[in-house]
Amino acid sequence: MHMERGFTSEEFEQRCQRIQKAMHNRDVDALLLSSEAEIRYFTGFMTQFWQSPTRPWFILIPADGKPIAIIPTIGVPLMQDCYVGDIKSWPSPAEDDDGISLVYDAITSHMGSKSRLGMLMGRETAIRMPLADLDRLRARLTDIEWVNMTTDVQHIRMIKSPAEIAKSRHVCGMVSSVFADLPNWVTAGLPLRELFREFKIRALQAGIDDVSYLVGSAGPGGYFDIIAPPDGRMLAAGDVFMLDTGCIWDGYFSDFDRNFAIGHATDDAKSAHHQLYDATEAALDILKPGITASDLFHAMDNILRPDADPDDGGGDVGRYGHGLGTQLTETPSHTIWDKTVIEAGMALTIEPSIIYGDGFLMVAEENLVVTKDGFELLSYRADRDLPIIA
Amino acid sequence: MHMERGFTSEEFEQRCQRIQKAMHNRDVDALLLSSEAEIRYFTGFMTQFWQSPTRPWFILIPADGKPIAIIPTIGVPLMQDCYVGDIKSWPSPAEDDDGISLVYDAITSHMGSKSRLGMLMGRETAIRMPLADLDRLRARLTDIEWVNMTTDVQHIRMIKSPAEIAKSRHVCGMVSSVFADLPNWVTAGLPLRELFREFKIRALQAGIDDVSYLVGSAGPGGYFDIIAPPDGRMLAAGDVFMLDTGCIWDGYFSDFDRNFAIGHATDDAKSAHHQLYDATEAALDILKPGITASDLFHAMDNILRPDADPDDGGGDVGRYGHGLGTQLTETPSHTIWDKTVIEAGMALTIEPSIIYGDGFLMVAEENLVVTKDGFELLSYRADRDLPIIA
Repeated sequence: MHMERGFTSEEFEQRCQRIQKAMHNRDVDALLLSSEAEIRYFTGFMTQFWQSPTRPWFILIPADGKPIAIIPTIGVPLMQDCYVGDIKSWPSPAEDDDGISLVYDAITSHMGSKSRLGMLMGRETAIRMPLADLDRLRARLTDIEWVNMTTDVQHIRMIKSPAEIAKSRHVCGMVSSVFADLPNWVTAGLPLRELFREFKIRALQAGIDDVSYLVGSAGPGGYFDIIAPPDGRMLAAGDVFMLDTGCIWDGYFSDFDRNFAIGHATDDAKSAHHQLYDATEAALDILKPGITASDLFHAMDNILRPDADPDDGGGDVGRYGHGLGTQLTETPSHTIWDKTVIEAGMALTIEPSIIYGDGFLMVAEENLVVTKDGFELLSYRADRDLPIIA
Repeated sequence: MHMERGFTSEEFEQRCQRIQKAMHNRDVDALLLSSEAEIRYFTGFMTQFWQSPTRPWFILIPADGKPIAIIPTIGVPLMQDCYVGDIKSWPSPAEDDDGISLVYDAITSHMGSKSRLGMLMGRETAIRMPLADLDRLRARLTDIEWVNMTTDVQHIRMIKSPAEIAKSRHVCGMVSSVFADLPNWVTAGLPLRELFREFKIRALQAGIDDVSYLVGSAGPGGYFDIIAPPDGRMLAAGDVFMLDTGCIWDGYFSDFDRNFAIGHATDDAKSAHHQLYDATEAALDILKPGITASDLFHAMDNILRPDADPDDGGGDVGRYGHGLGTQLTETPSHTIWDKTVIEAGMALTIEPSIIYGDGFLMVAEENLVVTKDGFELLSYRADRDLPIIA
């Protein structure tokens, strides 16, 4: 299937207009962004170069018109093809002034009478620049009020466009196929580390751009850890193992896992898998626009911990799923406290987890997009029975 | 070749003792760290889960003894195997207090009479937590002086141990083999995007854990961009192309590139490749402990821009190489202004770049480690002649 990469400039224009409307509502003259996800979202600037911590990158979204890029010269050729107006650049890394004067100038030249600058200061954000430079910038901008626009930006990013959803659907479909084929090549005796390596190769062969995230573990009867890199354990009969992967196509993530057993599994493990399946079903049963992320939490928690105190926020994972898009995880969080209203266009994971047997942890995850009156699964739904590899 | 993964606890003990000595010298009672590279460096906590921006993570290094982890409960099983003393944890994401009270308590209980807290505030660092939470923490810690320990931490991290160097050598050797084999399978007509995919597969097959970074471009006569993802261009006779890759083995990066031409190349391109080779030779000729990163810049710049004003800091890339380790790029930077003294044990890239012909950019890169009286190449040295694929 041929899939178009990138986005139209109309798409970026709409994204910018949405945040500019929110800025207008908050009397904000300009919005300063320093983070990979937001700079990509509003301009299309996509590069793995963010892995280098050396240079800071900025865009300033003015009240009207295209974003202004304030970036190291090394990024200018790529930024020139993006949805930006002016590009201000400097040869970075610089000794004393690594972009700060340029950022200061851009801010002050875009401050209207309101003198209010939007920033990301809230949950799941971080300012990607040295703290000393940030403090220096704030000290020079004493007449300016800094306004937290985290929820505005996150709300806009949460609602995916049809073009974004197509990318998520594409990547989740490819990963589903790789998982579906896994029992055909995994056997007892395979070291977990080699299983991971082979999974990555097969995902690339299936058309994935990057296997950015692949974690999981294996052990007799179950596993305890869900964020670790693989160890050297050789898979053995009776093992339960899990792979959780964030694969990327054109900048959009899948994020789901699958559980398997080798040869046979305990009743506890089988039952845990059933409970996770049923918890996911309970979430899917209520999933449509108008409910909240917290409703999803409760629907799952009722199955997973029927006797729990209703004010107890859940287990060690901290939530039962989250938003999906250009980052491995995005807002919202399916927790007791997240009252985000679910809307059509949101891409979400449903990710119940359970403790069973001798303290084993099991987690199951599906990816979906919310539609006008329900949802569309992006991952191929896992079976209710824990798959056992002969 | 069998290579041991991980490090001994003695290695982490030495790392901690080094920073604790620097803390003592600066009258600092404790050092607060929130960033992936530093938390891994001092504790061994290694996970791709950092890609999720949802949860903040902290360690506090006290004046003596092991680091204290203040982390989301989801990370406790992995952290328990790391070089830490106490682990304080909370179910994250939390509604109101996402670890901040625990961090506050840990800091105040470790403040001695000096009341000085170390932080990373300088070049190439960022505080990985929401700005509002950071501001709140600072407001509550009014009696405490925040001390910038960036250069101390960076200096310790720059000097690699034999165990670290062994990992860098291993990953660079594997990547060198993949590059050496590339002319055997690349031909005109291959889309650049498929070339990249195949490179990743072959790197994994060679033993790489993750191809975390692979950028580059191709074009008739040369390329302009050195940080972009691949486009759909089909390689054609006369194209010059470059792949720059950061591959990872057990958490340690290679970072070098290779240039190739298809069928034939212009004299300009061939000559640019010669100049880059000669600039690298000039750097290698002087490379030994006692010189500075700036000396490396000048050695290369004399070859690349013999007529440039000696006070001119160089081209658009901003530097001619950098440190190498657990991040794609680390300190120092080979720039006109970086006077970091080169020491034995530093892992470095040598990365001259040049503008030629119709504004084409060409960059060449090698990886090495500094020894007592010179250096050891970690990448297999590129040929002086631009390789032409028949």
